[in-house]
Amino acid sequence: MTGPALSISRRTRRTPFANRVEASGAKAYTVYNHMLLPTVFDTVESDYHHLKRHVQVWDVSCERQVEIRGPDAGRLIQMLTPRSLGTMGFGQCLYTPMVDETGGMLNDPVTLKLAEDRYWVSIADSDLLFWIKGLAYGLHLEVDVDEPDVSPLAIQGPKADDLAARVFGDNVRNIRFFRYAMLPFQGHELVVARSGYSKQGGFEIYVDGADLAEPLWDALFAAGEDLNVRAGCPNLIERIEARLLSYGNDMTRENTPHECGLSRFCQTQSAIGCVGRDALLRVAVEGPIRQIRNLAIDGEPVPACDGIWGVFAGGKRVGRVTSAAWSPDFQTNVAIGMVRMTHWDDGTRVEVEAPDGMRTATIREHSFI
Amino acid sequence: MTGPALSISRRTRRTPFANRVEASGAKAYTVYNHMLLPTVFDTVESDYHHLKRHVQVWDVSCERQVEIRGPDAGRLIQMLTPRSLGTMGFGQCLYTPMVDETGGMLNDPVTLKLAEDRYWVSIADSDLLFWIKGLAYGLHLEVDVDEPDVSPLAIQGPKADDLAARVFGDNVRNIRFFRYAMLPFQGHELVVARSGYSKQGGFEIYVDGADLAEPLWDALFAAGEDLNVRAGCPNLIERIEARLLSYGNDMTRENTPHECGLSRFCQTQSAIGCVGRDALLRVAVEGPIRQIRNLAIDGEPVPACDGIWGVFAGGKRVGRVTSAAWSPDFQTNVAIGMVRMTHWDDGTRVEVEAPDGMRTATIREHSFI
Repeated sequence: MTGPALSISRRTRRTPFANRVEASGAKAYTVYNHMLLPTVFDTVESDYHHLKRHVQVWDVSCERQVEIRGPDAGRLIQMLTPRSLGTMGFGQCLYTPMVDETGGMLNDPVTLKLAEDRYWVSIADSDLLFWIKGLAYGLHLEVDVDEPDVSPLAIQGPKADDLAARVFGDNVRNIRFFRYAMLPFQGHELVVARSGYSKQGGFEIYVDGADLAEPLWDALFAAGEDLNVRAGCPNLIERIEARLLSYGNDMTRENTPHECGLSRFCQTQSAIGCVGRDALLRVAVEGPIRQIRNLAIDGEPVPACDGIWGVFAGGKRVGRVTSAAWSPDFQTNVAIGMVRMTHWDDGTRVEVEAPDGMRTATIREHSFI
Repeated sequence: MTGPALSISRRTRRTPFANRVEASGAKAYTVYNHMLLPTVFDTVESDYHHLKRHVQVWDVSCERQVEIRGPDAGRLIQMLTPRSLGTMGFGQCLYTPMVDETGGMLNDPVTLKLAEDRYWVSIADSDLLFWIKGLAYGLHLEVDVDEPDVSPLAIQGPKADDLAARVFGDNVRNIRFFRYAMLPFQGHELVVARSGYSKQGGFEIYVDGADLAEPLWDALFAAGEDLNVRAGCPNLIERIEARLLSYGNDMTRENTPHECGLSRFCQTQSAIGCVGRDALLRVAVEGPIRQIRNLAIDGEPVPACDGIWGVFAGGKRVGRVTSAAWSPDFQTNVAIGMVRMTHWDDGTRVEVEAPDGMRTATIREHSFI
């Protein structure tokens, strides 16, 4: 379940919630954006069951923000993504594939528009700050690009609305999916967005200032005792069932958003200014030749997936698996991978080369949940 | 000694040496450039003694390369650093502080000149690739910027020359400090540089192609049995004694190279084109007001340093410690930190706020070794 020991140092940054996370019994971590991200509290399976039934508070401080501020902020943000942001309004947060000049994925953040000249980009695991700073410098844009002291805290699970309402008021119930509201907490206005890295529903609170972290954590746990609130974290099994992609696992700079199944977030034709636009217009015409799929892998629970597992059909390699775990609810191994168009149709039978041997598997066009 | 468990996944990339590292009994890891880096084999102290007496082979694949290739490669590489590269020749590898437009450190890589239009930048822990790609795109430079399949393997320790000579021939003995030669191994020419992240002497071999990794590892261990060769890794204690800085620990984007004590690697006046030149010229005139120092911290062995420890004098904060460990050889706690100019003179007595209480400490102008 867990791996070898992790050596910690200042470089693997502690979060403002770290004392609470430790006191809650975090058993394992990963490093994400040079920061500690817990991965297990009880067991991955028991965390999973709890997430689907109750409500959890997640320290996702590692979703660092890149703040872009200044007269050219709107122009710069559109350069980063093939998603058309021309009509983006305040109170919106948009999932935005971000690409280089070849259309290769650099990150898949959520972008928040805070003002006409001010955005937060809530990043996955790569130093997107460096790309944005490089572009801004090279193009002489009038912007300031920096990492502010903002640490997101997620509330996820079917009782998330009830818990959030007890701390932020019933207004949270009216926040629509991928919208945010500014709500008060102890005299501060915080961004509260209906979003998060699970399909169980909930919110992400952008904690603006490390000194608010423990008071907010404590307020949520005090308010949620009878809701069976627990400390949690993004759950490997649930996120695979939901086909929530992980940058660095399921996609890298080698992949276009179309290969990643993110075409619905690309309006490349109207995303004038996107640096990868020329390349992606070409892909949009021709279509990708491989694409993200879920797979159900037969047999006993698979070992941890810490590398690429080949996908084969008739002895030929037709794809790869990049995330996999045993699903208690579906009683099969659930996986995410990329499969060539010859074998990506729903129900196609393939073979997966797991570390402990070949397994039969079935391609799923849609996610499990 | 070791921390909590580390969850591994494809995102925390395995190296081409990972099977050998595991078989050699690596007990703990960190994540560095999205890749596994072992941190302990026996114990940090026993690894330290062995490193200082014998020879070790280190998997430092996580020192990823950024390859810059094309007509504008020379112009771009000078943009990245205040070190003057105008006279850099083939066969040289230079330690190069790399800075943003404000002079803030983005990375402190070793730069290798492979040809007039081709460089490798061997990076510390940040996605420098993104900064370089952003600059190249924004400035319409004629270069290709990518991460090649190159994984450095280090040979470190007093017997490193003997071991390297047995595998690469006696030519390795003639390689000067921070120079490299192209030497044959199994029909390939590999970059073998006299460099490495210890002060015990040795080489870094830039293994160009993952398929060469295990053969080279095996050849070194077969050749070095009577030299008491062991698998090792950068050693926390030794690198602090030697004042080898760690990006993300001892310095970040907030610090200039001058604060980091790296002024001797800055010829900012002649580094025409360096993007941080204006800011650094100013600092070079005024001088930094705080700077990297070693400290000897009194008392029992300190706990692991996983954050910033304040440095105080007369109740006022005058600096911080960012790396610390007990040194068996010096029988004191050795540390690296930044101290204000009012208190940075050799021998100044200060207090350090360790997690287990205040400790007295002494500033050291020079490194321990």
